[in-house]
Amino acid sequence: MVRYINVRSRTRTEFIDITEKVQEVINEEEIKSGICFLYVPHTTAGITINEGADPSVQRDIQVTLNKLIPFEGDYLHREGNSAAHIKSSIVGASRSVIIDDGRLVLGTWQTIYFCEFDGPRHRRVVLKFISDRL
Amino acid sequence: MVRYINVRSRTRTEFIDITEKVQEVINEEEIKSGICFLYVPHTTAGITINEGADPSVQRDIQVTLNKLIPFEGDYLHREGNSAAHIKSSIVGASRSVIIDDGRLVLGTWQTIYFCEFDGPRHRRVVLKFISDRL
Amino acid sequence: MVRYINVRSRTRTEFIDITEKVQEVINEEEIKSGICFLYVPHTTAGITINEGADPSVQRDIQVTLNKLIPFEGDYLHREGNSAAHIKSSIVGASRSVIIDDGRLVLGTWQTIYFCEFDGPRHRRVVLKFISDRL
Repeated sequence: MVRYINVRSRTRTEFIDITEKVQEVINEEEIKSGICFLYVPHTTAGITINEGADPSVQRDIQVTLNKLIPFEGDYLHREGNSAAHIKSSIVGASRSVIIDDGRLVLGTWQTIYFCEFDGPRHRRVVLKFISDRL
Repeated sequence: MVRYINVRSRTRTEFIDITEKVQEVINEEEIKSGICFLYVPHTTAGITINEGADPSVQRDIQVTLNKLIPFEGDYLHREGNSAAHIKSSIVGASRSVIIDDGRLVLGTWQTIYFCEFDGPRHRRVVLKFISDRL
Repeated sequence: MVRYINVRSRTRTEFIDITEKVQEVINEEEIKSGICFLYVPHTTAGITINEGADPSVQRDIQVTLNKLIPFEGDYLHREGNSAAHIKSSIVGASRSVIIDDGRLVLGTWQTIYFCEFDGPRHRRVVLKFISDRL
């Protein structure tokens, strides 16, 4: 009833398109209508939905977040990744997407991104579906 | 099973109260108990729930976001609306609200706002209901 | 069908761990599989999920939010708590968590925090469950 998507980040901050992987799980589970819950079980990562057509958009989001929440600062947390924790609480570690007619209901320009804020790491996204029609 | 609310923004950044429109759809669908999913299929807009009694509150939120994420900056995205994309990822493009006894479960001061970050435009909000009781 | 958790904040900004209280309600409701919706019916508070092992993490998040959104500023809202409203829209007033095998599906380091941004106050969190298996 719970599914997982594995994600491998390569750099410190990185947005990874998981849209197709989510759709594949929906196809496998044969969900026709309902809600797809995407949950990141990590405290230094997040989920966002934003433009996928121009890669500059996700770069601008990351650069701006890095300016607002610098990697180095007056942080007390000793692991050196406080910025990543803060970004996770701002962007959020979960998101819900509607499923209709077997497909994710996304806008024309929308892409589902796993947001790595403290990579590189092996990560997971948990998927749960609530179906209201077969 | 999926419903839409049309929204028309008049300025560049604007919060538009959609609470009553959402409640009207709940009435029409006769949902008594469950969850209402609100989803914005746009990458330069969002959904937030905040105070509606004093219009200064939404103005203060918008002005502060505009200060933190200026319209002009070292952005690579050529369309000139990177700030709107960034705000969308910070505020979020979806939100869930509980329905009980046929009504949205909102706090006394809460209003559901469609957040325009790159107007003026014609926009839509997608609504999906998961009902657990008739 | 709707449950409440009472929270008592002691200072102006404070993150309060509600993980165990949420799990207790899940146990009482005997939810085995589904989604737990956490909703804050307040406009100067929020919900976040972040690291609970080192208390420095939540302190770093609060201090950074306080720097980005100062308590005093060019705010129009007369009640003097605009910063709290802004933080509420950035962090978000609701969150969904997956339930599997009767337990919240949380990562190893994840804690569910009620975020007080305008305390001290008596607060509530609304809980709603969508169960897909008994």
